[in-house]
Amino acid sequence: MTSPVHFELLTQDLGTAGRFGRLYTPHGSLETPAFMPVGTQATVKGLTPDWLTQLGTRMLLGNTYHLALRPGADVVAQLGGLHCFMGWDGPILTDSGGFQAFSLAARNKLTEEGVTFRSHIDGRQLQLTPESAVEIQQKLGADVAMCLDQCPALPASKEEIAKATQRTIRWAQRCRDAHTRADQALFGIVQGGSHADLRAECAERLIEMDFPGYAIGGVSVGESREEVLKALEVTAPFLPANRPRYLMGVGRPQDILAAVVRGIDLFDCVLPTRNGRNASCLTSQGQVKLRNAQYKLDDRPVEEGCPCPTCSRFSRAYLRHLFMANEMLGPILASAHNLAYIHRLMEQVRQAIRDSRLREFVAETLEAIGP
Amino acid sequence: MTSPVHFELLTQDLGTAGRFGRLYTPHGSLETPAFMPVGTQATVKGLTPDWLTQLGTRMLLGNTYHLALRPGADVVAQLGGLHCFMGWDGPILTDSGGFQAFSLAARNKLTEEGVTFRSHIDGRQLQLTPESAVEIQQKLGADVAMCLDQCPALPASKEEIAKATQRTIRWAQRCRDAHTRADQALFGIVQGGSHADLRAECAERLIEMDFPGYAIGGVSVGESREEVLKALEVTAPFLPANRPRYLMGVGRPQDILAAVVRGIDLFDCVLPTRNGRNASCLTSQGQVKLRNAQYKLDDRPVEEGCPCPTCSRFSRAYLRHLFMANEMLGPILASAHNLAYIHRLMEQVRQAIRDSRLREFVAETLEAIGP
Repeated sequence: MTSPVHFELLTQDLGTAGRFGRLYTPHGSLETPAFMPVGTQATVKGLTPDWLTQLGTRMLLGNTYHLALRPGADVVAQLGGLHCFMGWDGPILTDSGGFQAFSLAARNKLTEEGVTFRSHIDGRQLQLTPESAVEIQQKLGADVAMCLDQCPALPASKEEIAKATQRTIRWAQRCRDAHTRADQALFGIVQGGSHADLRAECAERLIEMDFPGYAIGGVSVGESREEVLKALEVTAPFLPANRPRYLMGVGRPQDILAAVVRGIDLFDCVLPTRNGRNASCLTSQGQVKLRNAQYKLDDRPVEEGCPCPTCSRFSRAYLRHLFMANEMLGPILASAHNLAYIHRLMEQVRQAIRDSRLREFVAETLEAIGP
Repeated sequence: MTSPVHFELLTQDLGTAGRFGRLYTPHGSLETPAFMPVGTQATVKGLTPDWLTQLGTRMLLGNTYHLALRPGADVVAQLGGLHCFMGWDGPILTDSGGFQAFSLAARNKLTEEGVTFRSHIDGRQLQLTPESAVEIQQKLGADVAMCLDQCPALPASKEEIAKATQRTIRWAQRCRDAHTRADQALFGIVQGGSHADLRAECAERLIEMDFPGYAIGGVSVGESREEVLKALEVTAPFLPANRPRYLMGVGRPQDILAAVVRGIDLFDCVLPTRNGRNASCLTSQGQVKLRNAQYKLDDRPVEEGCPCPTCSRFSRAYLRHLFMANEMLGPILASAHNLAYIHRLMEQVRQAIRDSRLREFVAETLEAIGP
């Protein structure tokens, strides 16, 4: 079966492992490396689809755990699927729900069959298995679904990580077998912590299953920056060049840059919108914390020269006022700027790869925004 | 001195006292009858200026009390005035702050000089006098400022209302004397409860002062619908036909219609946005309360045929989900629809006046939305 999602590798940076490419999906294509904002509950908090498009968003992530609990996968399916439900016509990727079943739900219990847990909303007991994770995601109908994986809480011994990795491989096969939706791709997730041999084995086994894309999992769960980079370095070389590589849950600009250099194509993270809601703005000169008294009379935009809807119309002083007055428009405008910033950063990254000057671009950017 | 704000009466409905006109201000003109959304803290909650324009908003109201406390009139002035500060290029009207000094602040004390009160934000003691209300509004720089008036808490005896009315007249003269800003108009406020003789006297005395516009005050503070209509009926006939008439704080569609029929040109109210934030939508078939379980799978828009950004893209089921999940986008989208609805209603009212069929239009509308 031909995958409905495929990846075209267009240019490789000469000085790094950085890749410029294009990801094709049933809801359109996008250039990579790309950042996906997180629409946890079928909405990127405070922003409409039109606004997201204007900010440069091309692909979104939806959280299966949240959507399965509320409004429920059947409700979404009856309303035409996630794209139709939330009014977003572009590509969407859903995660498997497993990460939240561990991190948000109560009384979660892990077996070979899957994970049982109680909903953090109403206490209902639920089970997520490889098969049900796929079934739910097929109902949601995103362009890309993710395999259910097991991500050990860190720190963990190599033995524990090895066990989780083996289970992840078995679960990937069960997901592969359960997945039937022709207009949706299923990506595999490579686990293995920072152990090269475990990552290599996991990658090899998943590649045998021939997924149309591969994620690198387990890197945002309490690991240090060094361990993340090590995980990337020991994993990326094992992944096929003609498939997209997705680093889950990473969104700090510095971390994105470090990952792009190591050959990553896709990112998602709540950081731009969560920081925005907390009055913290990303700029090409580093963070601007809008609640600071120094901005009380500052009539400059959040970031000078930024063409986003926030910076083209509103001052730091106005945004500070909105946050001090607890006005919704503050989080909205700051989230909008942060997404515009991160999408612009990705555009600059793509251009730098095409110009084979990614290493210089990363060095200049880190010099400006700090390590 | 010629007023920078003037009113052109274009058409009078033949069957009612309804008027179609145009209000000219330093920031553009607008057709009346018109509704002004309330931007209490220099923002209409959750909506950007661009969005407001798209929804049909032509003129906004800002609350002097809130802005004087936070960020402060001097801050707004230093940042270029309220239009520049909040990024709204159209007309703005500010109230005097008196109403909130009575209703929101603590330990308020009223004398002939003015009202002293403690800020509801930080407990600071402040004084609002006719002179300082004008001074603050001149710093904010709206197109229209309002006189400080005294609005007795109801129920009140006729004697109490008469005293408040006399003081309102004296304060109007002090405001008139204090007002110097050439690019801002100052409107008078007629008090007098539902007593025709008090309203008539107040109107007469204010007209002697030759304000470029007149508000009818004291009608949203605990009065019954009948008393509001009585106040309108005993006041409007005394007001000059060539000046705009503004009914403060009224925004229920049914009440707007009753007031338009009695010759009112301008309205403001938090109702469309406050109701929107509470998941209650205005439609031409009456209210839609989006949290109701009946909308769980309802793929229709809030209002069928409504061209607003909410109805053209999102279903009742999606909006219900947003409210159930406490997502910001719910209040945003519902507020947007409600403003679009109320502006469309005003457009229909204007057309009905031009067609001299206002009475029929009001009857048909009340039949559809209920009394």
